[in-house]
Amino acid sequence: VHALGIDLGGTHARAALVDAQGRIVDSLRSKLSERTPEAVTRGIAEAVQQLFQQNPHAEKTMSGCGVGVAGQLDAPKGLVKVAPNLGWRDVPFGQMLQQALGHPVKLFNDLTAAAWGELHVGAGRGIRDMLVVFVGSGVGSAIISDGRLVRGAHGLAGEFGHVKVVPGGRQCGCGEKGCLEAYVGGHHLIAQMQELAAKPEGSALRQRVGGDLKKLTPVVLEDAVREGDPAAQALHSTAVGHLALAVANYVTVLNPARLVLGGGVLSRCPLMREQLGKGVATLGSLLARQRVEVVDAALGDDSGVIGAALLALPNP
Amino acid sequence: VHALGIDLGGTHARAALVDAQGRIVDSLRSKLSERTPEAVTRGIAEAVQQLFQQNPHAEKTMSGCGVGVAGQLDAPKGLVKVAPNLGWRDVPFGQMLQQALGHPVKLFNDLTAAAWGELHVGAGRGIRDMLVVFVGSGVGSAIISDGRLVRGAHGLAGEFGHVKVVPGGRQCGCGEKGCLEAYVGGHHLIAQMQELAAKPEGSALRQRVGGDLKKLTPVVLEDAVREGDPAAQALHSTAVGHLALAVANYVTVLNPARLVLGGGVLSRCPLMREQLGKGVATLGSLLARQRVEVVDAALGDDSGVIGAALLALPNP
Repeated sequence: VHALGIDLGGTHARAALVDAQGRIVDSLRSKLSERTPEAVTRGIAEAVQQLFQQNPHAEKTMSGCGVGVAGQLDAPKGLVKVAPNLGWRDVPFGQMLQQALGHPVKLFNDLTAAAWGELHVGAGRGIRDMLVVFVGSGVGSAIISDGRLVRGAHGLAGEFGHVKVVPGGRQCGCGEKGCLEAYVGGHHLIAQMQELAAKPEGSALRQRVGGDLKKLTPVVLEDAVREGDPAAQALHSTAVGHLALAVANYVTVLNPARLVLGGGVLSRCPLMREQLGKGVATLGSLLARQRVEVVDAALGDDSGVIGAALLALPNP
Repeated sequence: VHALGIDLGGTHARAALVDAQGRIVDSLRSKLSERTPEAVTRGIAEAVQQLFQQNPHAEKTMSGCGVGVAGQLDAPKGLVKVAPNLGWRDVPFGQMLQQALGHPVKLFNDLTAAAWGELHVGAGRGIRDMLVVFVGSGVGSAIISDGRLVRGAHGLAGEFGHVKVVPGGRQCGCGEKGCLEAYVGGHHLIAQMQELAAKPEGSALRQRVGGDLKKLTPVVLEDAVREGDPAAQALHSTAVGHLALAVANYVTVLNPARLVLGGGVLSRCPLMREQLGKGVATLGSLLARQRVEVVDAALGDDSGVIGAALLALPNP
């Protein structure tokens, strides 16, 4: 038995053939040159076609196709309600892809898919109560309770990037103000660095990239913090402080056996990772924090395609 | 089929015979004159004995006994780890009560039991994804996902009173600082009022109770707020602000179809209830807050005994 797992990001899509044990048999990555729903559908269909040509027996044994999408979905209807990175709103992507592939397609939030992958073949193996938090360009999470995904009444559970940390605070991509993501998501970290670098107290940060503010990244921020730049330290500690408190409180209310941390920003920013671990260890409730094991995601970019494929299998 | 539901509070215990449809057949309330585990066990056993005498057929058809306890439990072991209102620590209460009653006993957190009661015969009927928040002398919650209780890895999920709202802030009964409960739980609201009333800016509040600070209650606070006392308003709005933000964020990450609000403080404090409703409607994430129905708990004091009884039935 095989399933097809697709991870649809903002710049690339990845398609993988995955077996029932969650192993990737073959995979392809394709750049999204154009981001219209039609072009993305076409690009994915071509990649899948190529995968099937390279693996002639796979199509016959295929029993599901799951797609992880970075955005808010109406999953039962196959609808992408809002996908900021793609610029999509109310796109019937499930239906479109299903027609192009000639196979039933299920949509999942990208982090739901990644969490499911980590649970079954990654950092969560053997665990029944798990919380997954990803900090990349956005901030998201997934909750596993007693081995099952907590989806919420409308599939929106886990929208951790949009908890409010400063009511009325920084503008977030979701249209609201003061969301966690508006402080610690990769795009927003960079935007805050650019704002800082344009001010007198940001001169050290500006010089660090030779005045080219496009070179500012979360990694550059951590370098500056490590070397003692007080303005960079203030920015970093505010952002990480919001993240740590929110994650600690999340652990308090959910009492996971394991907290799995991942995402492009968190995996490249060891100071953030370290301070987040300390934050959970001091700010979580006493019993919950003593009993949670904090680990890093183990599958990297593979978690999304593996999880989407496993979720698409019958009775996941 | 009947089950026995017991609600063990800090000052009283209530025992009820409940049928399989969640109806209370008969109930007794007994004052806890002494709070040692032995005395409480004896008191409950006597009440249960009396219930069985009043309902001679019930004992034969009884198929479970559930106890809701205000405290942190190791439920599988029948252990009460910490029950601040009773002054208990690591009490093997499940075993003790089981021996005294001659029937198997299951322990549950009191709010878990109350939420289960509301779900099945109260404000949550027909709902599969529900969040229950109670503000009484303490603050607690329970999470229902797809019709199942989210218990967490060690039965500690829903410890909402101990999310941190002001790191390093007010001392909480749990031993930590800055918990939500330390600002908005009934005991702590009163303590803050007493602190305020002892200061010059609290003179209006002090006069309101004729100088007798023991008469200060959350209801008195709301009277003062309504009549324009600025110091009372500041205290109230800080406490309710913390509560509203925390509940809104809870709704964001869990996406419940219904948020059920209850507890002695919340049900007696209409301003708090109103501001909490507004807070959720403005601070929850856009999609989650538009789709959550905010309602009041419907069963009052009955929810705890009903829920404990239903949870104790086989395959609840």
